[in-house]
Amino acid sequence: MAFTDRVQQILSWYSSENPGTLTNLARLLNHGKLAGTGKLVILPVDQGFEHGPVRSFAPNPDAYDPDYHYQLAIDAGCNAYAAPLGSLEAAAAKFAGQVPLILKVNNSDTLAKMDQPISALTSTVEDALRLGCVAIGYTIYPGSGARNTMYQDLKELTLEAKRKGLVVVVWSYPRGAGISKQGETAVDICTYAATIAAQLGAHLIKVKPPSAHIEQPEHQKVFEKHGIKTDTLADRVRLVVQSCFNGKRVVIFSGGEAKGSEDVLKEVKELAAGGSFGSIMGRNAFQRKRADALQLLGDVMSIYKSA
Amino acid sequence: MAFTDRVQQILSWYSSENPGTLTNLARLLNHGKLAGTGKLVILPVDQGFEHGPVRSFAPNPDAYDPDYHYQLAIDAGCNAYAAPLGSLEAAAAKFAGQVPLILKVNNSDTLAKMDQPISALTSTVEDALRLGCVAIGYTIYPGSGARNTMYQDLKELTLEAKRKGLVVVVWSYPRGAGISKQGETAVDICTYAATIAAQLGAHLIKVKPPSAHIEQPEHQKVFEKHGIKTDTLADRVRLVVQSCFNGKRVVIFSGGEAKGSEDVLKEVKELAAGGSFGSIMGRNAFQRKRADALQLLGDVMSIYKSA
Amino acid sequence: MAFTDRVQQILSWYSSENPGTLTNLARLLNHGKLAGTGKLVILPVDQGFEHGPVRSFAPNPDAYDPDYHYQLAIDAGCNAYAAPLGSLEAAAAKFAGQVPLILKVNNSDTLAKMDQPISALTSTVEDALRLGCVAIGYTIYPGSGARNTMYQDLKELTLEAKRKGLVVVVWSYPRGAGISKQGETAVDICTYAATIAAQLGAHLIKVKPPSAHIEQPEHQKVFEKHGIKTDTLADRVRLVVQSCFNGKRVVIFSGGEAKGSEDVLKEVKELAAGGSFGSIMGRNAFQRKRADALQLLGDVMSIYKSA
Amino acid sequence: MAFTDRVQQILSWYSSENPGTLTNLARLLNHGKLAGTGKLVILPVDQGFEHGPVRSFAPNPDAYDPDYHYQLAIDAGCNAYAAPLGSLEAAAAKFAGQVPLILKVNNSDTLAKMDQPISALTSTVEDALRLGCVAIGYTIYPGSGARNTMYQDLKELTLEAKRKGLVVVVWSYPRGAGISKQGETAVDICTYAATIAAQLGAHLIKVKPPSAHIEQPEHQKVFEKHGIKTDTLADRVRLVVQSCFNGKRVVIFSGGEAKGSEDVLKEVKELAAGGSFGSIMGRNAFQRKRADALQLLGDVMSIYKSA
Amino acid sequence: MAFTDRVQQILSWYSSENPGTLTNLARLLNHGKLAGTGKLVILPVDQGFEHGPVRSFAPNPDAYDPDYHYQLAIDAGCNAYAAPLGSLEAAAAKFAGQVPLILKVNNSDTLAKMDQPISALTSTVEDALRLGCVAIGYTIYPGSGARNTMYQDLKELTLEAKRKGLVVVVWSYPRGAGISKQGETAVDICTYAATIAAQLGAHLIKVKPPSAHIEQPEHQKVFEKHGIKTDTLADRVRLVVQSCFNGKRVVIFSGGEAKGSEDVLKEVKELAAGGSFGSIMGRNAFQRKRADALQLLGDVMSIYKSA
Repeated sequence: MAFTDRVQQILSWYSSENPGTLTNLARLLNHGKLAGTGKLVILPVDQGFEHGPVRSFAPNPDAYDPDYHYQLAIDAGCNAYAAPLGSLEAAAAKFAGQVPLILKVNNSDTLAKMDQPISALTSTVEDALRLGCVAIGYTIYPGSGARNTMYQDLKELTLEAKRKGLVVVVWSYPRGAGISKQGETAVDICTYAATIAAQLGAHLIKVKPPSAHIEQPEHQKVFEKHGIKTDTLADRVRLVVQSCFNGKRVVIFSGGEAKGSEDVLKEVKELAAGGSFGSIMGRNAFQRKRADALQLLGDVMSIYKSA
Repeated sequence: MAFTDRVQQILSWYSSENPGTLTNLARLLNHGKLAGTGKLVILPVDQGFEHGPVRSFAPNPDAYDPDYHYQLAIDAGCNAYAAPLGSLEAAAAKFAGQVPLILKVNNSDTLAKMDQPISALTSTVEDALRLGCVAIGYTIYPGSGARNTMYQDLKELTLEAKRKGLVVVVWSYPRGAGISKQGETAVDICTYAATIAAQLGAHLIKVKPPSAHIEQPEHQKVFEKHGIKTDTLADRVRLVVQSCFNGKRVVIFSGGEAKGSEDVLKEVKELAAGGSFGSIMGRNAFQRKRADALQLLGDVMSIYKSA
Repeated sequence: MAFTDRVQQILSWYSSENPGTLTNLARLLNHGKLAGTGKLVILPVDQGFEHGPVRSFAPNPDAYDPDYHYQLAIDAGCNAYAAPLGSLEAAAAKFAGQVPLILKVNNSDTLAKMDQPISALTSTVEDALRLGCVAIGYTIYPGSGARNTMYQDLKELTLEAKRKGLVVVVWSYPRGAGISKQGETAVDICTYAATIAAQLGAHLIKVKPPSAHIEQPEHQKVFEKHGIKTDTLADRVRLVVQSCFNGKRVVIFSGGEAKGSEDVLKEVKELAAGGSFGSIMGRNAFQRKRADALQLLGDVMSIYKSA
Repeated sequence: MAFTDRVQQILSWYSSENPGTLTNLARLLNHGKLAGTGKLVILPVDQGFEHGPVRSFAPNPDAYDPDYHYQLAIDAGCNAYAAPLGSLEAAAAKFAGQVPLILKVNNSDTLAKMDQPISALTSTVEDALRLGCVAIGYTIYPGSGARNTMYQDLKELTLEAKRKGLVVVVWSYPRGAGISKQGETAVDICTYAATIAAQLGAHLIKVKPPSAHIEQPEHQKVFEKHGIKTDTLADRVRLVVQSCFNGKRVVIFSGGEAKGSEDVLKEVKELAAGGSFGSIMGRNAFQRKRADALQLLGDVMSIYKSA
Repeated sequence: MAFTDRVQQILSWYSSENPGTLTNLARLLNHGKLAGTGKLVILPVDQGFEHGPVRSFAPNPDAYDPDYHYQLAIDAGCNAYAAPLGSLEAAAAKFAGQVPLILKVNNSDTLAKMDQPISALTSTVEDALRLGCVAIGYTIYPGSGARNTMYQDLKELTLEAKRKGLVVVVWSYPRGAGISKQGETAVDICTYAATIAAQLGAHLIKVKPPSAHIEQPEHQKVFEKHGIKTDTLADRVRLVVQSCFNGKRVVIFSGGEAKGSEDVLKEVKELAAGGSFGSIMGRNAFQRKRADALQLLGDVMSIYKSA
């Protein structure tokens, strides 16, 4: 299979990685309906762990079943399916090779009151290999007082993953004592969080769509001084992309809470216009009935395809 | 020995595991009076460690003797006997091969005041192999601020256990600063705790029978919105089963404090009606006189057999 | 499951082993139609490797399929099925838990011209654990100039297997420059080979039925001086059993080349009369049509049962 | 040396252990004046480390010399001498083989203010082997917030010690934020602490003589409900013995602070009457002049001998 | 147990060893009827492996049973019992602690035609620890072209054994292309072989009683020049003892083939007169009826005792 120029270009940004990691990155980029476009739509399902099963799956009880998500990701033509250990294991043998897998190696729940937000390590690079994953996924909370533990754990995982030829995906969600609730999606914070992920060696970076809010006074001054445009989501996305090594790291955006299809598509158009490499869409996919989810994911892919 | 369709079906849910783990899972499912039914009644005896010897064994002093529990599990036809290192070692050679063993690899006592609830690691996967166990057992306390340490320790144990062909049983008991006393058995928390265990890679999950209480406001809203039935214990058990990968992970329920046989059997009927895969019954077994315990365990098995 | 006195007696001979090894030994002794009798009939299929597939399976082409042998061992009620890595892997998940497995960890083929006979190490203790085996099997060729490599490899495997709770089965087949063709089954050599296996720490020993030939002059003198009876196969088997720690190690006999059922049963009667713990019967089982094989294995088991 | 029936009986309780551990256990039971009785009097000298040299040895300055304790243990006919690394090393070569040695592998001093009581690991299993010890000794403080670290360290030590054929002795001294000063020797806490040691895999358990105080309300209720006798020290010792796997683990009692010989002997009589397996007597031995110490140890042994 | 001056003197020759090794050496010297004399009579039973079971045990069929030898060594009051892995394992738990054990970690059989004589490694230092042995035993064949492999394997074993506190016993039997059949017991060769063992770090050295034959011309000249007396066995033994670091390594002599009690005792008297530290007597012990063996061993011990 000859690769598209775009895929070759993207791979060229990662030329320090070993061929194993490049191979798995290529698998991500060449799978599903967006294969070869350099765009990605990924199905992530860690809400059972992160929010509890009932909040996650009651809107569409078929989604209690781990098989459901594999099949949805396959049928929708997603580039990958990302989930914690248990979910992947539950059907990894059954669907082996049908969709690239990302093992989410840390997870949090809403039961514990943690002094500082930090997810627990819940699986390993070894698990990712035995389950046939192309990547590991890891969440950092820039802004947390437990930052160092997270970055250090990630450092070890990244080193091992790259040595073994895996891709590293980092969810970068600002959170913690240093950041206001509004600041968690502030454009200055979001761009910053994206850069941190890139600096930690992430191959793929996942952030939330940034709001126009600016959290830090130091940033406020700079944004004003240089007349940095942040009016539209597309403007702000462009800034995030720029913050990811001037567009040389793949950055994708999460969809957040479930909402109407109109709203989803409107947001995705802005993301695409801003140069996003794609979307990672969980609740908006699996909390819809299957037919609706397939429709919506298809529409989202169409937007990226024509971007 | 040909396997029943039900046992084959259950094994099919674990197809990502190696044949060693499947073999030990099959041993659990095919031993004792419930062999082949897909149901399990397990005798756990960690109360000596968890509550102290006198509170545990004064009601039936024969139970001070480690041999007693082996013999009880064997004679009652339990699927397995679970205990900490010392108890298993005390008679593992004597009863070798007579009943599947689960080594409880972490334990807590009531002497220490811990800032955050977390059990101590007290034995290893290597111990489980040298004692001839089919599984390791590990307790997590979702809701504890020490959650991350627990999940991370479990991650390592799970990886090693699965590589060596053992089954992983997780006791998931919500507890800690994030949860009210009442919330520890709340239906939203219990279902959540069951899912966490499943996501952590548990093959067998042990939770407490859930009450109708709902702890988290976010859950309250979802339960109401979707009209989720939680009136009877059977309803709530059904929800727990669903939360364990839509019934594709074996989940069993603990009996809790010793109570009258009537009450035990009434509760077990509800558990069975809700689709529980079985019971793990410690104090209600070994705190009775042996004849009574055999009678009660036999009655419990009959309920599951005809469920 | 209460054990028979005979099984308890056999286990008592292995009291230096850990409970894990005792458990797996008990599994061998308590499976199939001979469960509890202290006798064993084992199906070994390493001829595909040792003699080539066509020589092995052309007489009964169904036997090309690895599933066939699992099913045959299960349906015949054998105590165990023994095979090299590939054969076991091919269906270990499918038949997990249905029959005790012995992983043959070394194998030879007839393609290479070896200076001295020695099998190649082809799998590991770790493989045995992940495949759910109760034992590893290893072939030694006493009489080979490569003896030392074999014994030394076995020493390492044995130490690891015992630490991990597995049983060690040794095939002891005299062969090599030091022994004439006729001597390979000579009664003095066969008893010697059985003792060597026992001394190397084997739990189960497999030898060929000894002939009345005496190979070594030193032995000839001793046999004559002490008037040791070797007239009948039963006499000679009795001597082999005695040579296995005075009957305190389980020793079983292979059937050798395929022959008529009459001949097989006649030989087995002699083996049983001499105190053999059982038979390991490969070609005489799988080179017959399935119905005939089941019939023959059943008849063999009946002989041991009534011995 | 033929063993007494009592020694054989005691060894039978440890049948899951390897012959190496059984051998070293037999060495403990068959040495000194109490050889063969199943009773033990052990000389422990870790007070130099635990309380400082002057507090420990000023009452009898000869005891500053490590040789002194070896000679005392030998001449008194103790079953063993237990001490930290330095003390043992100081004369292990000189007295090699003259008395079984127990290497105390963790130790605490009174200089540091620890948040939670926990001893430091001060030597290793490898040290125990190179010094010719029959056992390692380890102190746990049930009730300490550092409980988990202690139990987890012990888990690793125990696994290694048992693999290498050593005996594991656990000093179980309740202490920490969860327990009142009075509670440290309360009968409910002491029995609990003994059970914990047994569950952690200890072969020999050392506790303090329990007082009649009951620390935990939950225990108070159980003691009352079941009319458990705790009036005399003998009653309470009986309960401790029962709490050690119904008497199937060797449990011995420490003598505590130095006191008059009358008091010591009176206490030992109660211990013996309650079924104690012996005493571990440090300060009451080495803080007396040698002749007095020999006299007292001799008297103590006589009591156990005739018990 | 206070040690005799002689035992203390012997231990003083090994002052570079760690206390663990000294302890185990003391155990050898202080066990059985010769305890404390500095003399040793050891029962070795590796003939099953080395010569085959029938040649070894037909003269006294009770000796097929591994228990027999343990009991014989115990009842005769031997200092130790030495055997290969299987024999020791067969009853190590049963007789744990009743007699010091020497694990023979390499063994040869008479089935293979080896280019150069060299035994196979058949067990490990780890095995010796788990079986509770005081020593490992290793055979070298000085004169063999495979010398280097043997010395190098022994070097590794010795280093590990000494680190773990074990004693190293070396059987030094000249053999191989460089030596005539008669030369294998020649006095020049035997003294040489004893020195090699000492130089390789052996604590105990076992050689055959030397004949008056002198194998090497270089030796012949020296023997003559210095008028070295070799007339009597006592003379030659004296030379062997001298060759073992001037008597500062314990050297004992094997008895060789079974012979009449008169002959045995006559030879032992010469050995004792020459300063031998004792005898290692296998076939002359276990090939006699038990009562005769006990009588003979007792007589041998008496000779050494009064030497």
